[in-house]
Amino acid sequence: MNIINTFDQLVNHVKSLSKKTVVIAAADNDAALSAIIEAKKLNIADGILVGDAKKIQAILEELNYKDIHNFKIIDEKDDKAAAQKSIEIIRSGEASILLKGKLSSSLLLKAVLDSEKGLRTGNLLSDVFIFEYPERTENKLVMISDGGINLNPDLNQKIDIIKNAVSVAHALGNLNPKVAILSSAETVNPNLPGTIDAAIISKMNERGQIKGCIIDGPLAIDNAISMESAKEKGIKSPVAGNADILIVNNIETGNIFAKSTTYFAKYRLGHVVIGAKVPILIASRSDKPDAKLLSICLGILMSERKS
Amino acid sequence: MNIINTFDQLVNHVKSLSKKTVVIAAADNDAALSAIIEAKKLNIADGILVGDAKKIQAILEELNYKDIHNFKIIDEKDDKAAAQKSIEIIRSGEASILLKGKLSSSLLLKAVLDSEKGLRTGNLLSDVFIFEYPERTENKLVMISDGGINLNPDLNQKIDIIKNAVSVAHALGNLNPKVAILSSAETVNPNLPGTIDAAIISKMNERGQIKGCIIDGPLAIDNAISMESAKEKGIKSPVAGNADILIVNNIETGNIFAKSTTYFAKYRLGHVVIGAKVPILIASRSDKPDAKLLSICLGILMSERKS
Repeated sequence: MNIINTFDQLVNHVKSLSKKTVVIAAADNDAALSAIIEAKKLNIADGILVGDAKKIQAILEELNYKDIHNFKIIDEKDDKAAAQKSIEIIRSGEASILLKGKLSSSLLLKAVLDSEKGLRTGNLLSDVFIFEYPERTENKLVMISDGGINLNPDLNQKIDIIKNAVSVAHALGNLNPKVAILSSAETVNPNLPGTIDAAIISKMNERGQIKGCIIDGPLAIDNAISMESAKEKGIKSPVAGNADILIVNNIETGNIFAKSTTYFAKYRLGHVVIGAKVPILIASRSDKPDAKLLSICLGILMSERKS
Repeated sequence: MNIINTFDQLVNHVKSLSKKTVVIAAADNDAALSAIIEAKKLNIADGILVGDAKKIQAILEELNYKDIHNFKIIDEKDDKAAAQKSIEIIRSGEASILLKGKLSSSLLLKAVLDSEKGLRTGNLLSDVFIFEYPERTENKLVMISDGGINLNPDLNQKIDIIKNAVSVAHALGNLNPKVAILSSAETVNPNLPGTIDAAIISKMNERGQIKGCIIDGPLAIDNAISMESAKEKGIKSPVAGNADILIVNNIETGNIFAKSTTYFAKYRLGHVVIGAKVPILIASRSDKPDAKLLSICLGILMSERKS
């Protein structure tokens, strides 16, 4: 497989894969339904819609979608029950991607993390956000993690967050991605615990304890993504200036950083939650149709891999 | 005074003010010298250059600056001594803005914070970063703080950080700026201490304990700056969608966020450290000439105010 360098290449690659089935938990939600409609139009995914059937039909009509019979609809008005039913459908093998509908993320994740009936694998769940960085000639798909799920990850959780992001890079064909652990500067500072973690994780990678990637940190964002800045600062690093994966120390940093690439820089984006038995998609009401479709494509790409 | 809405308006306003004198600590540094040359060309500031005189002259020549006699040069090869001498010059009234040269920020700030011979006022020092947000029709100058100095500010330090940013907004003519305290979402979450601080500070503002601004938080960045996102989320807030000042909970968030507006969104920027007896400018080697000039303009604007 060639490296997937851009979102257009991702969409083309996904079109060449077998069609997948997405189950939507609490599907009476316009963000989720418009996402599955986009995927259906492209013929890359089918949908099973678990939720209030009347409301689902009404929203599909509002969205001007005529072929309602194209979707399997399961009537379940209660959000928690809809989440459980959706997970059952995945466990039965009928669907291989879980898409959040109108229920809260915490309610969905609680059902996913149920030790008996959930989708646990023993791995940490984390959100992998990808933006397309137009200024690069190759490796344009750059990841940020975790701005979605883990509030203040500790050392071991950060390692899991890195492994999840690395698995996405591998699925994109980038078999040895460059991982930068970000901070406000490139110096290790005992008063900034994130820089300590960065030093430890870099060394663990050097010793072969974390494989399949090259990790360096702490790095400031400019050192991580701009070769010019890295050179000006005199930073010697196999990662600096050309990082593929940007790891942040807390959810606030990741969330604000990721959204700033969307709201200010206007970059294209997709994101997917990794670590459960199947990829989980958390479509946001403010995501544009393009972002929803790209997120489903990431879900399809990741559902091809063993968990 | 009218509100200064853009950086061009800032430069024009500063040209109408009396010329100020900037002292550069450890001035044998191309970033600092190119900044003062820009200001000198615009006739908005004079410079006193404290540092290795021979090296200063060599760098000025490298920068193709002919009128070396335009600057007062004080020969002082030791960085610490240069910082102390620069601060003496400010305390004598000969200069009203301090610009960091080649010495480290921590060395400069240590000299500034010296209780006997420094520039302390009793206020906290914080960095106010300003970007120009082209999508707004007014109030285009949006601030981020603190991505430069305070690592993990506590509640009281955050209040001081807000007051410093508000003082800059007031100097720009915005007498009641909207302050958003950012997090990853708009909900108060006991597991995210920053959202607790945001709730407390918002209430203190409501009770009149913090004046001259309207504060609301926690807000996600999209809710804070996009009216559309705020409406979609159904957030009722006098700040949401139109914030002038974006307060972050730690230096990593502020630093990565601010730099992303520069490196990804390509916005113009200026930044100034507030809280000492005079404004302090920390020119970075990677700042473009435009950013250096705008930072000096901010320094001049703020040096007009009583500390």
